[in-house]
Amino acid sequence: MNLNNYPFHPWKIIDKGWNPENVEASESIFSIGNGAMGQRANFEEDYSGKTFQGSYIGGVYYPDKTRVGWWKNGYPEYFAKVLNAPNWIGIHIKIEGEQLDLHHAKEVLHYERVLDMESGLYERSFTATLQNGIGVRVHSKRFLSLAQSALGVIDYRIETDRDATLEIIPYLDAGITNQDSNWEDQFWEIDRIGATQKTAYIEAHTLKTEFSVGTFMEVRLLENDDTIDFTSSVKKTEKKVGLEISHQLTAGKELSIHKLGGYLSSRNYPKENLESEANALLLALKNESFSSLYNAQKEKWSSIWKSADITIDGDVKAQQAIRFNIFQLNQTYTGEDAGLNIGPKGFTGEKYGGSTYWDTEAYCIPFYMATKNQAVARNLLTYRYLQLDRAIENAEKLGFTKGAALYPMVTMNGEECHNEWEITFEEIHRNSAIAFAIFNYTRYTGDTSYIPEMGMEVLVGIARFWAQRASFSAAKKQYVILGVTGPNEYENNVNNNWYTNYSARWCMEYAAEQMNRLYNEFPADAARIQQKIDLQDAEMEQWKKTAAQMYLPKDDALKIVLQQDGFLDKTLEHVSSLDPAERPINQHWSWDRILRSPYIKQADVLQGMYFFEDHFSNEELERNYAFYEPFTVHESSLSPCVHAILASKLGKEEQAYAFYLRTARLDLDDYNAEVEEGLHITSMAGTWMSIVEGFAGMRIKGEQLSFAPRLPKAWEKLQFKINFRDAIYTLELTQDTLVCSVDQSEETTLFVHDTAYTLRDKVEIAL
Amino acid sequence: MNLNNYPFHPWKIIDKGWNPENVEASESIFSIGNGAMGQRANFEEDYSGKTFQGSYIGGVYYPDKTRVGWWKNGYPEYFAKVLNAPNWIGIHIKIEGEQLDLHHAKEVLHYERVLDMESGLYERSFTATLQNGIGVRVHSKRFLSLAQSALGVIDYRIETDRDATLEIIPYLDAGITNQDSNWEDQFWEIDRIGATQKTAYIEAHTLKTEFSVGTFMEVRLLENDDTIDFTSSVKKTEKKVGLEISHQLTAGKELSIHKLGGYLSSRNYPKENLESEANALLLALKNESFSSLYNAQKEKWSSIWKSADITIDGDVKAQQAIRFNIFQLNQTYTGEDAGLNIGPKGFTGEKYGGSTYWDTEAYCIPFYMATKNQAVARNLLTYRYLQLDRAIENAEKLGFTKGAALYPMVTMNGEECHNEWEITFEEIHRNSAIAFAIFNYTRYTGDTSYIPEMGMEVLVGIARFWAQRASFSAAKKQYVILGVTGPNEYENNVNNNWYTNYSARWCMEYAAEQMNRLYNEFPADAARIQQKIDLQDAEMEQWKKTAAQMYLPKDDALKIVLQQDGFLDKTLEHVSSLDPAERPINQHWSWDRILRSPYIKQADVLQGMYFFEDHFSNEELERNYAFYEPFTVHESSLSPCVHAILASKLGKEEQAYAFYLRTARLDLDDYNAEVEEGLHITSMAGTWMSIVEGFAGMRIKGEQLSFAPRLPKAWEKLQFKINFRDAIYTLELTQDTLVCSVDQSEETTLFVHDTAYTLRDKVEIAL
Repeated sequence: MNLNNYPFHPWKIIDKGWNPENVEASESIFSIGNGAMGQRANFEEDYSGKTFQGSYIGGVYYPDKTRVGWWKNGYPEYFAKVLNAPNWIGIHIKIEGEQLDLHHAKEVLHYERVLDMESGLYERSFTATLQNGIGVRVHSKRFLSLAQSALGVIDYRIETDRDATLEIIPYLDAGITNQDSNWEDQFWEIDRIGATQKTAYIEAHTLKTEFSVGTFMEVRLLENDDTIDFTSSVKKTEKKVGLEISHQLTAGKELSIHKLGGYLSSRNYPKENLESEANALLLALKNESFSSLYNAQKEKWSSIWKSADITIDGDVKAQQAIRFNIFQLNQTYTGEDAGLNIGPKGFTGEKYGGSTYWDTEAYCIPFYMATKNQAVARNLLTYRYLQLDRAIENAEKLGFTKGAALYPMVTMNGEECHNEWEITFEEIHRNSAIAFAIFNYTRYTGDTSYIPEMGMEVLVGIARFWAQRASFSAAKKQYVILGVTGPNEYENNVNNNWYTNYSARWCMEYAAEQMNRLYNEFPADAARIQQKIDLQDAEMEQWKKTAAQMYLPKDDALKIVLQQDGFLDKTLEHVSSLDPAERPINQHWSWDRILRSPYIKQADVLQGMYFFEDHFSNEELERNYAFYEPFTVHESSLSPCVHAILASKLGKEEQAYAFYLRTARLDLDDYNAEVEEGLHITSMAGTWMSIVEGFAGMRIKGEQLSFAPRLPKAWEKLQFKINFRDAIYTLELTQDTLVCSVDQSEETTLFVHDTAYTLRDKVEIAL
Repeated sequence: MNLNNYPFHPWKIIDKGWNPENVEASESIFSIGNGAMGQRANFEEDYSGKTFQGSYIGGVYYPDKTRVGWWKNGYPEYFAKVLNAPNWIGIHIKIEGEQLDLHHAKEVLHYERVLDMESGLYERSFTATLQNGIGVRVHSKRFLSLAQSALGVIDYRIETDRDATLEIIPYLDAGITNQDSNWEDQFWEIDRIGATQKTAYIEAHTLKTEFSVGTFMEVRLLENDDTIDFTSSVKKTEKKVGLEISHQLTAGKELSIHKLGGYLSSRNYPKENLESEANALLLALKNESFSSLYNAQKEKWSSIWKSADITIDGDVKAQQAIRFNIFQLNQTYTGEDAGLNIGPKGFTGEKYGGSTYWDTEAYCIPFYMATKNQAVARNLLTYRYLQLDRAIENAEKLGFTKGAALYPMVTMNGEECHNEWEITFEEIHRNSAIAFAIFNYTRYTGDTSYIPEMGMEVLVGIARFWAQRASFSAAKKQYVILGVTGPNEYENNVNNNWYTNYSARWCMEYAAEQMNRLYNEFPADAARIQQKIDLQDAEMEQWKKTAAQMYLPKDDALKIVLQQDGFLDKTLEHVSSLDPAERPINQHWSWDRILRSPYIKQADVLQGMYFFEDHFSNEELERNYAFYEPFTVHESSLSPCVHAILASKLGKEEQAYAFYLRTARLDLDDYNAEVEEGLHITSMAGTWMSIVEGFAGMRIKGEQLSFAPRLPKAWEKLQFKINFRDAIYTLELTQDTLVCSVDQSEETTLFVHDTAYTLRDKVEIAL
């Protein structure tokens, strides 16, 4: 954990002072994205020190052939890698013949990065003395346009302390690789490479997946903000093209290099039009300046913040953290493209590959439902509906039949592409989260059309899977689910993980109940589905029977449910007894030791009690929380948020606040000592939940919003907006009052601490 | 399964008829070795069809960097690869300009391989018509010398149907690779390469491990058995050197190319002397001919067979099979070098890497104890003693302390070098087999010195491991062993595997008991050990307490022990209900499905009841056999032998015979459809046990031999010898009589079906 890497500021992330050891970590933190593409905060000029180069395009991936020590039957053929894409930001600069490269500078006098979350702008400035004695000052600004999703813009300003000859080569480079390649395969093949005086273009396609990508750039020069003309000579190699420009810079004058660049891909355009589309885009921008483009960017971000911002008075570190989380979520996924999803690292690193985990359904959907319009959340559900056939194929590969669907642990296109047997084959609870998200979406939005139109088929595929996967134990005379990995990945191949069994039971019941509802309310849809997937009553009876006889491990003496069979045989020592030098245990203990320990990586039983909270009394929750929390090491980014919400609910305010900080500042404070690999995007939605469902205690009660606020002590005021059933609610919470206003005039009910209040326009409630 | 690939013959394996699809399988079956080195039966002349090239040197390995999909803490850094060594057998032959290569011949008219197990000679002959119309007949003989362990000898005879110019290039080639390389690393680096008119030499060393190996050859030519002189020109490339010889062959005359070649390594000679040692060896063989060297080979094999042969009258397929097994075991390990061990594939393939598994202690030691002098078995135990420090380091890497030792799953030098967590970290029962072998050796040989001199320290290291690895379950109020893989590798990460818990308990008890014996009988050794390893009485008390309170899962209703916690929750359908098209299940089912099935890869509970058979009544054995046998798929080569022995004991003669054939003819009949990867060497010792401990029912009763014969119906007579406590016993068994003779005149007792008989010289007992 590296507390205080970045000073607290309500809207900005600031990294001050030159520390080469910190370059890779800050490249993650200062990443920018616009939903369609994103990039790590790599330098524009050369840098020969330690750096992790990364630029990514949503949905463009490579199926890297699986590499394991010993092949096991059923392994997916490939692991989908988020592809490092061609570099369009680079500018080689020589000053009086010396390459500008901070790693080789004589001295770096000043160095600063600033990320302005309010407007989506990333800035970097430094002053350095080169080996040849020349002093140079650089100030660059960069953003990826929300208005034009193919476009990124750079304003790179340079000044020297004496007259100097600059050799400048803005370039495109497709000679890039992935750090995590399995077989040192080549991922890209170049199809076309060319340049004019002021523009350059590389077209390349990915091997195997055959995505074509056109990477383009246009260069403009300005001196003291006046556009100047220039000539360039094209420098071209097999995979790289640059425009070499010679420029005499006078001391005290500032040269500004503007680069407009980005990607167009065959995901959005016909392959054969990519180059002309790039030219058309640049032509359309002919009269746009950096300022005018940046103004559009500011407007877009302003409109995002209008519905998504959370303000916290009295606690700037909490304020900074929640904005950082909301900012990153919006950089990663805008909800406009149903073919995209929310990768665990977004556009900030390669780790985890793929784009879609159960994180989306379990953690991200509430955020997008509440801060955007309901079409966005529906797009996320539709993504899974469109991949149902693949989920059925995944299940068939594992021996399931008759339309049973197993959604993948990791995927780009619906096919499973992870490769650890204990995860891919056994962490099957992911299926339940996908069904739960359908329930949750319907409950929140009131959209009754999704289930008959799409969701029902998904629910049936999942119910079929569970009915086949559960087996009857003659010894227990109940249905059991053997050989699984629960949400707690510090257990593998356990029997009767409570969360898995409980959620499987719920899936079967819910599918049967919804199908019945369709027969009554949407008979045409019911008939269509019934025929399409050959669903018989006997099958639904079997779901109900399996659900009714599902075994759920518990301990009567402790009055708790059991995480899995045999949990109480472990040596039950609390996390507090661990040597801090051995934490996180996954970096210090061998895997077998972790497995047989009682330590819980992320909420498991408690995840279930969070999802299905109405099913349990506060006393039940209290006992289970009291038992499991002390064994939880929270070594998954997805863990603290659930504990924060439950701690709030149970009135454990200090714990809740500590968990909040841990989830909210996970990357800023680098709790897991790995931020250089990229940011934990999906858990950022959990941070939002910690506030809205935790401190504000928001729930849906019937068809109405309900709140049970318990603010952290330091918080003077908490303010946020919620899009609920197409109305916008604004909440202002202090320690003593709740003020709720709504942008509709219809009268509605609001529950606060279970008391009903009438809401029309605005209501103020003393707490 | 490919029954009847090879015709039955008491002493020979014969492969008749040209079938290119069978080349790789026969390369395995016809492998030859002499304990120090071995090779697959690759062709001497060129072959461009499918082939698996392999030549191996005992103890020479490469630590190939581990490659896994997701790294887990505690993984060994490397996986030891048995190295494919430079090729010394090769001879390029051109006949009138056309390369001799059966893959490109116009027609192959006759083709035969013969392995003569009686003398250790491998022959191959063929007649083919080349594309240029020339008919050619080849007959080659090859053996690896038991008399000179560095030496192999080839007599390669060639005849053409018309006068022809032959271009012959006998060569050495160090440009070889491993099929199973993880990172396409180079394994060898060439240090020296040279040749004279008639000899050639390549010296190379392995990277990382730095073994130096000198590969040498000498070439002689004979025409119609008369030595002829020849000149050659040296053809040298970076990694290969050959002697090019032009020869005019007259139709009807036979040219014989003799190659003497092989390896000298820095395991046995100072690196700087390797070349001079090779020259000295060849000089010493100046007057030896192929015949004289082959005569020495025959003598050596004759002496092996004298003590190790088993004859079976009335069942030639059983006869052939047991000899094939005994032959391969002797090719793999001769017992002369305590630095070597018995790799699961011997010198016949690359798979499994490493050289030493628990197979050695669990399956091989009885064979070597009974068919060789006791020094050989003691060498196998010493091998583990010498690696005790490494076993302690292995345990330390997993968090154990204070001299706890975990012997590796796979090793070359004592370090663990396997890389599946469920095996490496969890299949810890291997430790018990190593302790059991010490007990078994002492019981069999009567050598009371091994434990005080070496074995005690091993027993203590193992007892310490179990005492730390077991943990106290407050729920069960007993010690449990969580998170293990038992002998049945179709279960992973189970709790309380009965075999593991039972054998762990025995290890702790045995170590305490032996240490007490040392205090009484070998006080000086006891004091030395006590001080060396800081062994306190309190620690031994803890072993005894842990052993006494060890939890052993059982089912009172079924009156059986339970393979592990929760076994009875599985869907308990017998193997007989499986679709034969889905067998072996490991080639058809995904791993998760295998794991949650009740199917047992190899004897698990029954392995324990085999080891500790005195601890269980016949009724207990019967019930457990009746329960577990029907779930056993025997997809490990190590499984049928244990079932064969127990079936014999329980009087299930037909089952025993079926299991015998399955273990004995596993490779000849290719039960597991994988013989091309190499032979299953260690399970061959299990075949020997199936006869001696199974059909003959040999046990040690106190200090005496005991037999309980139950011959298969077809067997008229079974005859074998046993070296027991330095006397040689010859057994002749028919359906009605047992004749036992001994080569000592002292009077001793022999038990047959629990009745005592006095034996002096010879006794005949009616059954």
